[in-house]
Amino acid sequence: MLAILMLLAVACTETGEQATNPSPNIIIVFTDDLGYGDLSCFGNPIIQTTHLDQMASEGQKWTQFYVADPVCTPSRAGLLTGRYPIRSGMTSASRAVLFPNSAGGLPQSEITIAEMLKANGYATGMVGKWHLGHLPEHLPTTQGFDYYYGIPYSNDMDFVQGSPRYYDEAIKDPDYLAESAYFNVPLIENTTEIERPAEQLTITKRYTEKAVAYIEQHKEEPFFLYLAHNQPHIPLFADEAFLNKSKKGLYGDVIQEIDWSVGQIIQALKDNALEDNTLVVFTSDNGPWLVFQTHGGSAGPLRSGKGTNFEGGQRVPTIFWGPGIVKQGLVNELGTTMDLLPTIAALTGAEVPRDRKMDGYDLSPILKDPAQISPRDTFYYWNQARMHAIRIGPWKLHVHQRAPVFYWNQVPLEKPELYHIETDISEKYDLAEQYPEKVAELLAAIAAHEEEVAEDALPDNLEAKIELE
Amino acid sequence: MLAILMLLAVACTETGEQATNPSPNIIIVFTDDLGYGDLSCFGNPIIQTTHLDQMASEGQKWTQFYVADPVCTPSRAGLLTGRYPIRSGMTSASRAVLFPNSAGGLPQSEITIAEMLKANGYATGMVGKWHLGHLPEHLPTTQGFDYYYGIPYSNDMDFVQGSPRYYDEAIKDPDYLAESAYFNVPLIENTTEIERPAEQLTITKRYTEKAVAYIEQHKEEPFFLYLAHNQPHIPLFADEAFLNKSKKGLYGDVIQEIDWSVGQIIQALKDNALEDNTLVVFTSDNGPWLVFQTHGGSAGPLRSGKGTNFEGGQRVPTIFWGPGIVKQGLVNELGTTMDLLPTIAALTGAEVPRDRKMDGYDLSPILKDPAQISPRDTFYYWNQARMHAIRIGPWKLHVHQRAPVFYWNQVPLEKPELYHIETDISEKYDLAEQYPEKVAELLAAIAAHEEEVAEDALPDNLEAKIELE
Repeated sequence: MLAILMLLAVACTETGEQATNPSPNIIIVFTDDLGYGDLSCFGNPIIQTTHLDQMASEGQKWTQFYVADPVCTPSRAGLLTGRYPIRSGMTSASRAVLFPNSAGGLPQSEITIAEMLKANGYATGMVGKWHLGHLPEHLPTTQGFDYYYGIPYSNDMDFVQGSPRYYDEAIKDPDYLAESAYFNVPLIENTTEIERPAEQLTITKRYTEKAVAYIEQHKEEPFFLYLAHNQPHIPLFADEAFLNKSKKGLYGDVIQEIDWSVGQIIQALKDNALEDNTLVVFTSDNGPWLVFQTHGGSAGPLRSGKGTNFEGGQRVPTIFWGPGIVKQGLVNELGTTMDLLPTIAALTGAEVPRDRKMDGYDLSPILKDPAQISPRDTFYYWNQARMHAIRIGPWKLHVHQRAPVFYWNQVPLEKPELYHIETDISEKYDLAEQYPEKVAELLAAIAAHEEEVAEDALPDNLEAKIELE
Repeated sequence: MLAILMLLAVACTETGEQATNPSPNIIIVFTDDLGYGDLSCFGNPIIQTTHLDQMASEGQKWTQFYVADPVCTPSRAGLLTGRYPIRSGMTSASRAVLFPNSAGGLPQSEITIAEMLKANGYATGMVGKWHLGHLPEHLPTTQGFDYYYGIPYSNDMDFVQGSPRYYDEAIKDPDYLAESAYFNVPLIENTTEIERPAEQLTITKRYTEKAVAYIEQHKEEPFFLYLAHNQPHIPLFADEAFLNKSKKGLYGDVIQEIDWSVGQIIQALKDNALEDNTLVVFTSDNGPWLVFQTHGGSAGPLRSGKGTNFEGGQRVPTIFWGPGIVKQGLVNELGTTMDLLPTIAALTGAEVPRDRKMDGYDLSPILKDPAQISPRDTFYYWNQARMHAIRIGPWKLHVHQRAPVFYWNQVPLEKPELYHIETDISEKYDLAEQYPEKVAELLAAIAAHEEEVAEDALPDNLEAKIELE
């Protein structure tokens, strides 16, 4: 009889409203330059990402999920603050990202997901690439993280040979000087430099070990873990256990190590009985860096890649997983990394900052029911402090573009280009002449947004200020 | 005690060698012009193919699976005979496919999968598009099928208005005259014309009903069912239950109806307790017809589409499913539709014809264990009775190309182009200058194959012979 009652109790829990856990753990895995088409569950024909595929089939695969900007620094600012990076001064007219000669960083006035959750009693750890300021006053520990371990910016910076320029050569030959010793990037723990140059062959492995250790150390309390891999950004590095394992070559080896890494995270959650009380989000900071040929990824069916505001630059492969939080389903609704902050707030009961403009929306209703409609129907494509495009519903208007190369030339389009990006997934057929009223509507929406943002934006924090040796 | 013994017996069956069923049912679902990137499990960001996605995650998703030719007629000849279509005269120097004015068809001397299985005691049924000869002496019932129901060629043939040409207009506007009444194609049952013009709005639905009925009627005996959809070939048609359901527009509606159709097949197998004793193969006859814009599909990350020998023309989204036959896994090994005949022979104990050159390989070891290596390492890309390209391992050499438009102009390349299509999945980086010895090796393999085929090929069966009214 007791057994029957217990069965009934289980049945009621399963069919009725799920018991709301007040403090689920949150893990965000953020990759660097991973393309929309680089995972097997997103259609890659060669790279095998079996752990991510399983997460996608158990959880939710989001196929129209965007980042706030098509390059590293502003994309990361958007994710952590829930706001377009122009608002925090983390995008610039003159440069795309922070470089080692930048003195700036994410302003202390910004409120990050880590700060929001810390105020709510969470342990907060970060492992990996920060790229929101590398001077002591800008490190993750100043932005709500109790713990930090990682390379503070891109793994291709601090190139030790000034000439010939690394990029000029690497575009012609992706294998050019691709050894850790040529990139004098620091590895930092909390605020201390512990290794320089960071040994990059083992960087994904070591990040994974630190992430797993963090989960084990904090299994008794709610925690937020932000694991931001430096890979698959060039120069590519994988541990010897993964080298020559993928038919795709080194790029495939790197992705398969990241897939292994995600598998280790999931296993750690299961080993510590945390899998029903943890949300895992997997996504990328921007599209693939196509100029590096076979060392860059694939945007799958999407047009162009990193640095551009075509879909290949800003739409990223995204998976939400968590058996106790996420209901299985395929989601074609709009979402962005800026929506993570309000979504996580809704799941954890944390407070969304109310004293500032927030660009994110709460997507948690979709996580609970994939048939729900997204609260987001508009997305603004910023690029180096300019708006390049806008999407409302399935319509996208380009007004400004830049060439998909390392040197970012921005050019206003002579005529705006209009695409219906749900029926024309590769942005092939310009419909501007056929739908002038739609062009006008989207142009007006751009103007209104630019005006609103102009009143709000902080000064440029990316400019060069430090004299390097 | 009995219960324990039964449990032990089950455990032994599950862990040990699977009891070999001597006569599994075989179902091949063949779509028309479906692109590599058109299913959500192959990376489509908008179209939702939840039944096929589930089959892919339960069975095997094959990501390097080819058809024998990038257009309808020869592709179908290759599938049914296990031989390059040049051998049966089902490819031609002058035309790509059979038209209503063709008197020819697949020669009776050829042995189809249906004939092979019929000799082995199978019931053999075909539903859908035949396109291997529409005169009575060429219909499916002359080639081993006990039963036939379908349109005998493409759904865009017999256009009732001679001028302007349908294609000229439809390339500019895919909605041009896209109603069943404008395409006077016959619907045939066995050898009798039962409807003309075939009502195409309900064609996928009716094919599905016939296929399900066939399964139910033959559940007591081993059967082979070949379901060859006419869709998503232009003009596109979907039943009203599916219209306006996909954000992708009509093309998405059509694919989602095909996905529903596959779900009905699987459900019928389950309803009749046949799911553990049936192999279901899902694939497409060639890549997407890109010139028809949003009425054509997507090749995902692959280059070009239908009619070309780039990967987008000949690599197709392929799933093997059958819980009692296929072991779950992601397969990047080489396979082709020509391999189905020997594979099915191995699974059913049927006799592969031994008196002729067979181009297929037995893939059944991979179906039983996805870690196995494919017996195939070479693939010849034929096109209108000419070889256009060759693949050996990851290397592909193009020697001849045609433009990806409706009018097929063939052009010899001034210099062969060499691609490493596993590291360079989109055929972007020609390596011919870097690897002259690889070019020479592949050129020699082409010459040897052409010489072998020249001794073997039957005369052209595609030429125009019938005066149409």
